[in-house]
Amino acid sequence: MAFDIPAVPGFAFGGDYSAEQWPEEVWTEDLRLMKAAGVTMVTVGVFAWAMLETAPGRYEFGWLDRLLDQLAGHGVAVDLATGTASPPPWFSHAHPGSLPVDADGRRLWYGSRQAYCPSSPEYRCAAAALAERLAERYAGHPALAMWHVNNEYGCHIARCWCDTSAEAFRAWLSHRYGTVDALNAAWGTAFWSQRYTAWEQVIPPRRTPSFPNPTQQLDFYRFSSDELLACYRAERDAIRRHSPDVPITTNFNRDRWGVDFWSWAGEVDLVSVDHYLVGEHADPYADLAFVADLARSLAGGRPWALMEHATSAVNWQPRNLAKPPGRLRRDSLGHVARGADAVLYFQWRASRAGAEKWHSGMVPHAGTETKVWREVVGLGADLAALSEVAGSEVVADTAIVWDWANIWVQEHPSRPSVDLDPVRCAEQWHAALRALTVTSDFAPPNGDLSRYRLVLVPALPLVSDVDAANLVSYVEGGGTVLIGPCGGVVDENDHVRLNGYGAWGELLGARVEEFFPLPAGHTVGLSDGTRGRVWTELAAATTADVLVSYADGPLAGAPALTRRGTAYYLTTHLDDAALRTLLATVARSAGVEPVLADPPPGVEAVHRRHPDGRMWTFVANDGGADVEVGGAVLAPHTLAVLPTRAQRREID
Amino acid sequence: MAFDIPAVPGFAFGGDYSAEQWPEEVWTEDLRLMKAAGVTMVTVGVFAWAMLETAPGRYEFGWLDRLLDQLAGHGVAVDLATGTASPPPWFSHAHPGSLPVDADGRRLWYGSRQAYCPSSPEYRCAAAALAERLAERYAGHPALAMWHVNNEYGCHIARCWCDTSAEAFRAWLSHRYGTVDALNAAWGTAFWSQRYTAWEQVIPPRRTPSFPNPTQQLDFYRFSSDELLACYRAERDAIRRHSPDVPITTNFNRDRWGVDFWSWAGEVDLVSVDHYLVGEHADPYADLAFVADLARSLAGGRPWALMEHATSAVNWQPRNLAKPPGRLRRDSLGHVARGADAVLYFQWRASRAGAEKWHSGMVPHAGTETKVWREVVGLGADLAALSEVAGSEVVADTAIVWDWANIWVQEHPSRPSVDLDPVRCAEQWHAALRALTVTSDFAPPNGDLSRYRLVLVPALPLVSDVDAANLVSYVEGGGTVLIGPCGGVVDENDHVRLNGYGAWGELLGARVEEFFPLPAGHTVGLSDGTRGRVWTELAAATTADVLVSYADGPLAGAPALTRRGTAYYLTTHLDDAALRTLLATVARSAGVEPVLADPPPGVEAVHRRHPDGRMWTFVANDGGADVEVGGAVLAPHTLAVLPTRAQRREID
Amino acid sequence: MAFDIPAVPGFAFGGDYSAEQWPEEVWTEDLRLMKAAGVTMVTVGVFAWAMLETAPGRYEFGWLDRLLDQLAGHGVAVDLATGTASPPPWFSHAHPGSLPVDADGRRLWYGSRQAYCPSSPEYRCAAAALAERLAERYAGHPALAMWHVNNEYGCHIARCWCDTSAEAFRAWLSHRYGTVDALNAAWGTAFWSQRYTAWEQVIPPRRTPSFPNPTQQLDFYRFSSDELLACYRAERDAIRRHSPDVPITTNFNRDRWGVDFWSWAGEVDLVSVDHYLVGEHADPYADLAFVADLARSLAGGRPWALMEHATSAVNWQPRNLAKPPGRLRRDSLGHVARGADAVLYFQWRASRAGAEKWHSGMVPHAGTETKVWREVVGLGADLAALSEVAGSEVVADTAIVWDWANIWVQEHPSRPSVDLDPVRCAEQWHAALRALTVTSDFAPPNGDLSRYRLVLVPALPLVSDVDAANLVSYVEGGGTVLIGPCGGVVDENDHVRLNGYGAWGELLGARVEEFFPLPAGHTVGLSDGTRGRVWTELAAATTADVLVSYADGPLAGAPALTRRGTAYYLTTHLDDAALRTLLATVARSAGVEPVLADPPPGVEAVHRRHPDGRMWTFVANDGGADVEVGGAVLAPHTLAVLPTRAQRREID
Repeated sequence: MAFDIPAVPGFAFGGDYSAEQWPEEVWTEDLRLMKAAGVTMVTVGVFAWAMLETAPGRYEFGWLDRLLDQLAGHGVAVDLATGTASPPPWFSHAHPGSLPVDADGRRLWYGSRQAYCPSSPEYRCAAAALAERLAERYAGHPALAMWHVNNEYGCHIARCWCDTSAEAFRAWLSHRYGTVDALNAAWGTAFWSQRYTAWEQVIPPRRTPSFPNPTQQLDFYRFSSDELLACYRAERDAIRRHSPDVPITTNFNRDRWGVDFWSWAGEVDLVSVDHYLVGEHADPYADLAFVADLARSLAGGRPWALMEHATSAVNWQPRNLAKPPGRLRRDSLGHVARGADAVLYFQWRASRAGAEKWHSGMVPHAGTETKVWREVVGLGADLAALSEVAGSEVVADTAIVWDWANIWVQEHPSRPSVDLDPVRCAEQWHAALRALTVTSDFAPPNGDLSRYRLVLVPALPLVSDVDAANLVSYVEGGGTVLIGPCGGVVDENDHVRLNGYGAWGELLGARVEEFFPLPAGHTVGLSDGTRGRVWTELAAATTADVLVSYADGPLAGAPALTRRGTAYYLTTHLDDAALRTLLATVARSAGVEPVLADPPPGVEAVHRRHPDGRMWTFVANDGGADVEVGGAVLAPHTLAVLPTRAQRREID
Repeated sequence: MAFDIPAVPGFAFGGDYSAEQWPEEVWTEDLRLMKAAGVTMVTVGVFAWAMLETAPGRYEFGWLDRLLDQLAGHGVAVDLATGTASPPPWFSHAHPGSLPVDADGRRLWYGSRQAYCPSSPEYRCAAAALAERLAERYAGHPALAMWHVNNEYGCHIARCWCDTSAEAFRAWLSHRYGTVDALNAAWGTAFWSQRYTAWEQVIPPRRTPSFPNPTQQLDFYRFSSDELLACYRAERDAIRRHSPDVPITTNFNRDRWGVDFWSWAGEVDLVSVDHYLVGEHADPYADLAFVADLARSLAGGRPWALMEHATSAVNWQPRNLAKPPGRLRRDSLGHVARGADAVLYFQWRASRAGAEKWHSGMVPHAGTETKVWREVVGLGADLAALSEVAGSEVVADTAIVWDWANIWVQEHPSRPSVDLDPVRCAEQWHAALRALTVTSDFAPPNGDLSRYRLVLVPALPLVSDVDAANLVSYVEGGGTVLIGPCGGVVDENDHVRLNGYGAWGELLGARVEEFFPLPAGHTVGLSDGTRGRVWTELAAATTADVLVSYADGPLAGAPALTRRGTAYYLTTHLDDAALRTLLATVARSAGVEPVLADPPPGVEAVHRRHPDGRMWTFVANDGGADVEVGGAVLAPHTLAVLPTRAQRREID
Repeated sequence: MAFDIPAVPGFAFGGDYSAEQWPEEVWTEDLRLMKAAGVTMVTVGVFAWAMLETAPGRYEFGWLDRLLDQLAGHGVAVDLATGTASPPPWFSHAHPGSLPVDADGRRLWYGSRQAYCPSSPEYRCAAAALAERLAERYAGHPALAMWHVNNEYGCHIARCWCDTSAEAFRAWLSHRYGTVDALNAAWGTAFWSQRYTAWEQVIPPRRTPSFPNPTQQLDFYRFSSDELLACYRAERDAIRRHSPDVPITTNFNRDRWGVDFWSWAGEVDLVSVDHYLVGEHADPYADLAFVADLARSLAGGRPWALMEHATSAVNWQPRNLAKPPGRLRRDSLGHVARGADAVLYFQWRASRAGAEKWHSGMVPHAGTETKVWREVVGLGADLAALSEVAGSEVVADTAIVWDWANIWVQEHPSRPSVDLDPVRCAEQWHAALRALTVTSDFAPPNGDLSRYRLVLVPALPLVSDVDAANLVSYVEGGGTVLIGPCGGVVDENDHVRLNGYGAWGELLGARVEEFFPLPAGHTVGLSDGTRGRVWTELAAATTADVLVSYADGPLAGAPALTRRGTAYYLTTHLDDAALRTLLATVARSAGVEPVLADPPPGVEAVHRRHPDGRMWTFVANDGGADVEVGGAVLAPHTLAVLPTRAQRREID
């Protein structure tokens, strides 16, 4: 990563500006309103391919010239999108082979968005060509502040099973394994008579009578993430040739966790992510904090851009809940609290037509005499007042190990328990830390862990030998680790580690003999009075101390929590309260400092700090009653920014 | 609409007679039993194509000649079907392109019924040819009383996504829009890079990665209804050439509401509908009354034919509940109460084989020593005794606006709330009126409303400018209107109306700023002590009075019910009791007269009247205890016909 | 059936040995461990096709030679599999037409297992060729004890809808019906215009707009079972040519009950079945006993082989529960109790890779210092100590009529009630007998019933005239029968029997007029104080006595249970306790002797006996507390083998 957004000092504030949907006379009104709201940057052209290239090679840039000139004239910076996420109908019609195909062999048609096979050479070529023409034309435009490649790679279509993809998959596998024999070994094809004798026989995991080969599926997921990354790189490199100094990003979106963003993070100049609250989620703010912390972690701790969120309701949930008064501010600043330096919405002006017309915008359908508009203007003022916060960082001394391959492994239909979901595990552990006001990063299994006092590994069944050793080195260097159930039981090919599950038997001083997943809804008593959930293991301590053991059930007496030095192992899952207590104890033993010593329920608190010592504490109250924190009284669902050290000034 | 069924005076009573399934010796028995039951009309040949045309152009009419002769000889009139709902295997085998294809690209095969693409030229041609040959042959047959085209258009296959349909869809769109640019404007293709540059690029909304274009989907639904109508017209016109004086109908069936019958109603000589009770429905009689009132409304208030219902169980529900003793009469006369002049069953004799063999018939599998047969005979006698009721009408002074496009819009996967279902809304409002014994018609948004004292608009988000003005004119002419939430928020292309949702801001004196759908199962308190459900809106009264406001939640203080003159607006949904109270109040204010001033719970009551003043009150008791109405005591689940005015004679 | 496994005296004990998944040095360790555990037989090569034939006609038998030699050298007998259940990738790639196609037209690909169309001539030819080559080579090998054809026919892919299958279906139908007219009569194609005029028009029941023709579907299921049987026969006959004296089997698996094993039972030399506990099943031991009794019944009462079960967890359930300590013994001996003479597991050594790596094995991932291994060794010793039990038989004087066609008929989407599931009915009745310690066989409708004192017919709507007469003869010969609701209402073509449902009106002295399925969850009171569930019927006793009648609901007063001589008819379903009481009464009246006169709750008991009078009682306690049976005290979830008569020696 090279640089943030030099063209936009302070916070970037704005949203997707789909100007092509409106007559140009509306643009004039838009520029006036942007000024009124303090908008500093808009994203232009995300879905404009059909407007920019109206026939093969026939580009129509006139409207975009006019738009960028006007934005520049009004001091609004532009995050210029390549518009390649949705090929126009003429393209798909001319190249039906570029349309994606699902595992059932069904072709997916144009008529919505993202209807392209990531491996399609026609698509890749046309997308890179458009990106290059845009870069040629606008590299020097005064409005240009950032490049925005494509949109939400992997959203809707993270994978394609067509013949073109099959060919690309074989090439990827050939590069990974070299020989068919090596592939046979990695995939364990001695099982179920699956041995391949020539590359041409290898296909994606299409619909098949029973469970697909797990390593085939895992490699196909890895391949698919890499294919999308290759799409990104092709556009990025085309831009770079003409616009070497302007930062390039693409907005990460976690749609079903289909793309491994650890491998993408180093390829963008600025990490940007999209995040939408799920209105009927039990704790939507836990989700907000999770994604924000992940974004910061992908950014290596540097400020990042919230490329899309919503001013109020979205359109794609069963019931699209509006935000009550005040929530817009709380949500947006909740991201700023965790390191966002850009607060951008989808979208500037709510659409009149199309599949997302019921998605809220900064300018609502009902105009500016509205709750939403008033709050947009208020937030713009807030961000301007907080401008010196921009560029400061959030520093965590705790990390949660997070890994896409483990999510993918759990998606295989044959696994010990459907309930052992690594995403839900990580969410629960992250939420427990948040309740303790312990700020945490996410770290890849092969990351540098030495800066952390505490590393949590809630759900990492799959780990390579090298990555397993990385964790051992961390503990040997003085770190504290807590490993959750099923840790390290398979290698990077999803092959079982024999003779006592797990890569960390010596580190933990424990040996696991057999898994005992619990039936749905069942719990089991533990010796400390808490209860195990979801999963239990028949384990034995070899050199570890047993801190907690099972009190009833078939494993009564076997260890539930062990400790060997600074390495803890938990063989079950706990409820939220017990997990919080455990993490508080382990964090204390590791010397981790929470932001608040004794946080009231429902309160979250994060520091942002500059190297020079200026620091702000962002405190949100998501409970049901007023709370007092650091002298400030927070009403429910509000957020305060408390400067600490030298100056102390309240903004709420 | 030109005429009813001149050949059958009084009530038509009978059913589908699938004589082709039985040896001819059974026919003799059938004729004897028909006489015993008082059967006056049977429908013949609905699924007889394979028996009538046994190879391309080879017709075998002998058995049908014999059948019709015998029926004529026994005085049973014939509703003669064209038999085109199911092409024979030889046809589909010879023309596989005539088989329908779903949105996933899967071809649907023959082996059940209705396996044809509505746009298939081979199908249309063959169906019209068969209809014409039948008309040529039987136009002058003494048994012939009515023509029955096809069967339940749109049932199972309301739409086809094949290439032939795509071509027809383009033709339909070209006719609607003239130019591709006009289509782009109507569909809002500036969104998501969907702009078309040539007609050939336009396709049906096939499976696509994300949400399809909403207007594309809506137009495809409109097109599909029109294609089926074109199929009907082709057969009807072929018949008319040879049989100009015999009424022609086709039986409407609401299967998933796929066909817009407002556009069909003017094309038939007599409206006929099918209705089946859903045994496990919470209130099956509410559903019966709903469909019967809709049938009468389609018939413009004239008597209509109940073309199919069941003597007892059907075969297609998870659990096919039989009718307890007495229910057959209550159900059939329940339709007569609301205007049916024909009481016909599927089917005369229960089949021994095939997919509907578990469907009850007038002659059950177990023969005539049965509850069902005894009740069939009893009903025949009842109808004969009531014969002077036939031809009388049901007059309503209340209308519920009903519109297929609004159902279709809600089926789009991206909409504010899954719970804002216009069918369920209309059903709830209709049920409330029924509980008040207020008889209501359904009216299309562009219908003549001037004959009504009260018009209800429970769920009409989509309305054209012209139709919106129609409602304004109605109120200006003295009418009373109650509009439910989300009314008029989009135009006929499903484009949002800006600057305060809704087409009726001035009429209602209110402006809606933002929708606040409620989470599943949530309710919100209202100032009158009732509670809002499903949906709330942030609105403001501009010139209206606020009658009820929100008492808690994020919208506390905002209006829930407003009134400006005779125009009411409700921004939420109510529970059944509160809705009934509201509708009673509004109906009273509009001068609407219920049939019973103070109806006991579970009682429904409807008048049928002749222009000369003869009138009957149909009263049904669906509650759990005896009730007394107009001097008659009704046991639970019974129905009485009470003559009023001159004569007064009880039939129960 | 000709003979058991002469090469293995006493119990066969062992499992699937997937040696091809392990380096040969592991084999040495395996042989040592097999000896330690008392393993006497292993199954080899079940999924080894890809290892045995590496290109068309290129066989590589070296590894198998070495393996069999070593096993022979260590005294371990071999059940040698033909390995044909999963064609290698090279085969499917070369013959894509051999891949199966589902009813939606979707081709299913290789990459898991069983990816072949049962009618594919390429597949059949290649499979038989491999079987023949194996038989040629190993017929005389000293290790060879049994041949194991294919694997779990019908698992995953019981049916194929491709064009090749369509052609084969027509051939099968042509053989069954002779003429298209006969097919039209059998299928009732006069309904819904389905009459066929040439064989070429007939197709499998592919996806179709509405309900498929029920007889077409039923015949397609029959055909599909026969096609798989033809696959089996082709391999068996190829083996027999070279190895006439070694028993041949294939392991039956009930996967969705897709295959009619009554027609298979006579084709194998030894019946072998697979059985896996479903951990979250309400009563997994009821299921174990059901499948074991069915296996014995398929074997005509002779000992059978438990070809596959699990030492602990499996991999394919949502939550794969491990077996608590002691359960391995209880489960395995539970099968022995009901006639198993072979106790074999899938699999010897748990796999490291592939889709079943989380399936337990005799040698677990964690090695031999494990609960599982200790229990495997213990069971080996138990079986050795019990060796004289081997060869003894289980003799039942009660039979439950069981028929695959009735399961298939209920799968049709148009039937009276989804709840009238013949499998669930049979399971409930079998469980009631088990609770009474009444041992029961299953019998086909056309079986010899004369050896039974009592025959139960819980769910047999479909019965041919001949089979119906079989039951009448049985009663006339002095037998007692209890027929459950809906018995005999359709003939073998699924055509309704008219004039009072049922084939047994005279036998039962009762006539059924109409079905009254109950709404979901509803019950109805009976005159004896119990309650009817799921289903009721409007019936009348003609010559029978009414023992119990309906006490409330629309059928109040109508018969619920009738008796004419020794023929009982039940028109409803009962709860478990009432059913147990009824069956106890009927069994007593028939002179049936339970194993225990007054069995404690949760106890099951079965006798195995030799013709010479030696006899053992297997008693299991699945309740929650210790029980005393025959002097032995059984802890919960344990099983004891109690010798009776001459010797009396306890093994628990």
